[in-house]
Amino acid sequence: MTAVAPEVEKEEEQVVNPWEVSAGKGGIDYDKLVDQFGCQRLDAATIDRVARLTGRPPHRFLRRGLFFAHRDFNEILDLYEKGEKFYLYTGRGPSSEALHLGHLVPFMFTKYLQDAFKVPLVIQLTDDEKFLWKNLTVNESKRLARENAKDIIACGFDVEKTFIFSDFNFVGGAFYENMVKVARCVTYNKAVGIFGFSQEDHIGKISFPPVQAVPSFPSSFPHLFSGMEQLRCLIPCAIDQVNKYAFSGGQDSEELQRELGANLEVDVPIKYLNFFLEDDNELELIKKGYGDGSRLTVEVKNLLGDVLYQLIERHKRARAQVTEEMVDTFMALRPLPNMFG
Amino acid sequence: MTAVAPEVEKEEEQVVNPWEVSAGKGGIDYDKLVDQFGCQRLDAATIDRVARLTGRPPHRFLRRGLFFAHRDFNEILDLYEKGEKFYLYTGRGPSSEALHLGHLVPFMFTKYLQDAFKVPLVIQLTDDEKFLWKNLTVNESKRLARENAKDIIACGFDVEKTFIFSDFNFVGGAFYENMVKVARCVTYNKAVGIFGFSQEDHIGKISFPPVQAVPSFPSSFPHLFSGMEQLRCLIPCAIDQVNKYAFSGGQDSEELQRELGANLEVDVPIKYLNFFLEDDNELELIKKGYGDGSRLTVEVKNLLGDVLYQLIERHKRARAQVTEEMVDTFMALRPLPNMFG
Repeated sequence: MTAVAPEVEKEEEQVVNPWEVSAGKGGIDYDKLVDQFGCQRLDAATIDRVARLTGRPPHRFLRRGLFFAHRDFNEILDLYEKGEKFYLYTGRGPSSEALHLGHLVPFMFTKYLQDAFKVPLVIQLTDDEKFLWKNLTVNESKRLARENAKDIIACGFDVEKTFIFSDFNFVGGAFYENMVKVARCVTYNKAVGIFGFSQEDHIGKISFPPVQAVPSFPSSFPHLFSGMEQLRCLIPCAIDQVNKYAFSGGQDSEELQRELGANLEVDVPIKYLNFFLEDDNELELIKKGYGDGSRLTVEVKNLLGDVLYQLIERHKRARAQVTEEMVDTFMALRPLPNMFG
Repeated sequence: MTAVAPEVEKEEEQVVNPWEVSAGKGGIDYDKLVDQFGCQRLDAATIDRVARLTGRPPHRFLRRGLFFAHRDFNEILDLYEKGEKFYLYTGRGPSSEALHLGHLVPFMFTKYLQDAFKVPLVIQLTDDEKFLWKNLTVNESKRLARENAKDIIACGFDVEKTFIFSDFNFVGGAFYENMVKVARCVTYNKAVGIFGFSQEDHIGKISFPPVQAVPSFPSSFPHLFSGMEQLRCLIPCAIDQVNKYAFSGGQDSEELQRELGANLEVDVPIKYLNFFLEDDNELELIKKGYGDGSRLTVEVKNLLGDVLYQLIERHKRARAQVTEEMVDTFMALRPLPNMFG
């Protein structure tokens, strides 16, 4: 038996769960994350396959590695190739009045997937989760869920293929049965291992994971998927990202920048342009010029400002068009006869 | 610091929770139980008060101490005296096809309370609980719930004052909101202290107590109690009783019995007659004769046999009259306009 010396310094562990993201000194180690969650890197061959199967270019979030890993995506593509469809599931914990750009990224990507694969989508608004974790009333959580639904609808989802629901409104029936079935399969110890609960946490937290698990089973939505209990589910998801500082890779003075060029690897404006500037050629020109010193930091920052401004203005205009009636329609318990159309 | 010697014998603790009843050597210590659960003994003054307020003799279960303790019952009676009604809540975990006599006792008593006070009643069938605790499928749990509803209806409840529901069918909406509200108030440690969960128990068990707590809030039943959020709830309940041996207080031979008489304190047939023989005078005569030796053990046992046979036959006949349509009606989500009539 070996004694463990308590003074041995432990490597700082990265913690990634639905409520906490904390990284070691070097930031999040994505390779480790991919391993830890039993995922695989989304490789070029898979991205090419998506392009071929959908008959359209892959989204820039795929081309440029914002969505970088998957589990069993190839199985879904195998079935899709044989003519079997799937459905998409994503969600949002409504803790604030409106969604910021980071919150919108997974929805933008989900819209692309819905359009490209022509598949139905369920969107869960976990107002119960926010009631349990934040100091909110039930009514305030429900109100925020409805407000957030407007931002989500503004991303352009197809009302004939999309069901948005709030837990407080929808939990019950087959959905509740599945919650209980999932709960019976997970020990307290296992839940603690995954989510890091403490014994002083209230049992509402410990009860919650099944609520978020069951939308991945088609039988949770009998009004949509009755008789389709084998339908596969694809879940686009993101981890929270708490960037406090926007590092620049540019040099400290115009003179030095012209002489040395920018370090593109650490430059946050370039990272953002990578995700939000659609045009591949334009992006390459900018990166080349910024890297060789012919473009200045201020120019790149201004360009990013323009890109983000346009994106946000477009979203604001779309959100202003979303009426209460549209929210009612997206959230109505209804069949979606054209969901695979 | 004191070392604890492992050989020190600990007093056997009694454990009483919804899923386990185990007593020390002397059987269950009811006085300790009353203290532990913050209850008070149901005294003669309270029983007299019930008789006066309802205008009918108290049920023999009250007169003879089968229901022996209460919490805040006097507050409910104070309000009732001023004209404010309350509602009754009881339940059943459907783990078997039919209810035995012990299971029926709380329902018999509840029927008396409903008739005497003229109040509505909600009956929860915890099919989810039995799915979680027993090795049952969801459908089997639901089927047993419906079968058990027949036994319960056979006790004679007033369909205009009674709503029977199964958790798998009813959880959702305001009921689910209340579940989440209760769950937020109870830490894991607290739940373990009350219910004795272990860390290897699945989280379904840990999630369950709120499901059984919320029927005590009128807001869980908006179709019945909308606008009556202050309505009090009275919960008749029993603890499980696991009597493996039926002790006789009679003597070993007819000769000894005639000479010494029986020990009524430990005699199980007398205990059962106490609960199930309605006639006070007849009961007194039997006890007197059995105690002084003029009645033999076999006579008392036969008499009990007759009483129980009649009770069970009456129940069987009533159950045979319960149709599927009656079950549907009792379990229909509906307002009860005459529930206080």
